Amino acid sequence: MDRDALKRAAAERAVALVTDGMVLGLGSGSTAEIAVELIAQRVAAGLDIVGIPTSERTRVLALRLGIPLTGFEAHARIDLAIDGADQVERGSLDLIKGLGGALLREKIVAASARRLVIVVDDSKLVARLGSRTALPVEIAAFGWPSTVERLQAYRPVLRTAGGMPFTTDGGNHIADCTVDDTIADARKLEAALHALPGVIETGLFIGMTSAVIVAGASGVEELTP
Amino acid sequence: MDRDALKRAAAERAVALVTDGMVLGLGSGSTAEIAVELIAQRVAAGLDIVGIPTSERTRVLALRLGIPLTGFEAHARIDLAIDGADQVERGSLDLIKGLGGALLREKIVAASARRLVIVVDDSKLVARLGSRTALPVEIAAFGWPSTVERLQAYRPVLRTAGGMPFTTDGGNHIADCTVDDTIADARKLEAALHALPGVIETGLFIGMTSAVIVAGASGVEELTP
Repeated sequence: MDRDALKRAAAERAVALVTDGMVLGLGSGSTAEIAVELIAQRVAAGLDIVGIPTSERTRVLALRLGIPLTGFEAHARIDLAIDGADQVERGSLDLIKGLGGALLREKIVAASARRLVIVVDDSKLVARLGSRTALPVEIAAFGWPSTVERLQAYRPVLRTAGGMPFTTDGGNHIADCTVDDTIADARKLEAALHALPGVIETGLFIGMTSAVIVAGASGVEELTP
Repeated sequence: MDRDALKRAAAERAVALVTDGMVLGLGSGSTAEIAVELIAQRVAAGLDIVGIPTSERTRVLALRLGIPLTGFEAHARIDLAIDGADQVERGSLDLIKGLGGALLREKIVAASARRLVIVVDDSKLVARLGSRTALPVEIAAFGWPSTVERLQAYRPVLRTAGGMPFTTDGGNHIADCTVDDTIADARKLEAALHALPGVIETGLFIGMTSAVIVAGASGVEELTP
């Protein structure tokens, strides 16, 4: 199977968990968008749910596909959030997210969800977080050069788009950081990053995952922490 | 002396520290604004400085008064920041700031300043932070009801303006929190708040103060940590 077929297989398994009456967190990124499309098909067939999107891009997609949307003003709790990840650590199921730039909203949705189900193909599984990928850190637009300087130990690279700093849905920027080879203590790193003025959020999702649905050449597997 | 005269006395002492060639952090709030006015008078008389404002309000004031402004893109470091505070803890000189809603920018400026000089009248001095004032916590606009729920242990009250959530210069909201009678361990509280998804910044300024200039009935005093 090619990578798209694997993503679809994982998304199908996750969307099978959706039942009538749920408030759903709608993830961002290529695999999560496949899940949004599958949810829309079930809505068209009569499924009764409302969604809270984790990005403007997913909001537009969901509206276009006819998924009814809501907000935290109406529903402070989400029953099930389905989202992708850039890396999943085997065992802990801790995540790195944010290569798509939606980490702040994704983390708020994840923290508000009774269940966070992550859908990935098996290329995202790693023994230890931090190898082979950057750790995205969302930083305030105001004073970003000083915040990048405070992040110096983590080799920050300001993400750009069209020659300008990339701007998130929340109006912030992203510094893509590199943390040695692997992240030895994710909680300690998370606290150290949050202690720096100008850091809004990090791409580390620690202890938030309820299940990971992984699609690989040998089939679809569900991992729990 | 009335309170305005005390604020002016403290601001005058701080502005006497400004010398030619400095990059200045320009604070927000009533006492800091007096300092901005005094700096403008010295600029009119030939003082050669540039300022980085901590709020849109101070930016407009400084421009109107003829203070040349700059940004972090040109100057990653600030020589001297002069700002006010809502509470100053005797001894540690740790601060609570943010009743004016500028805490995120104020903290970024403070963290980038070689010296942070705080100007207050003596009503702001307390033995222990947290009594008699709220602790402002800046939270993301997206999902704010869920973040307020995560802050529940700190008795959060969403700040409003004209019946709508108050919006900061960075597009965020403020939850004014109450922390028992006093804050026993400010560093621990700061870390606990930052660990909550949706929390952008807190009004705790710990270990950042270079000096506090306090004006009281018996005169102007300079405190150092």
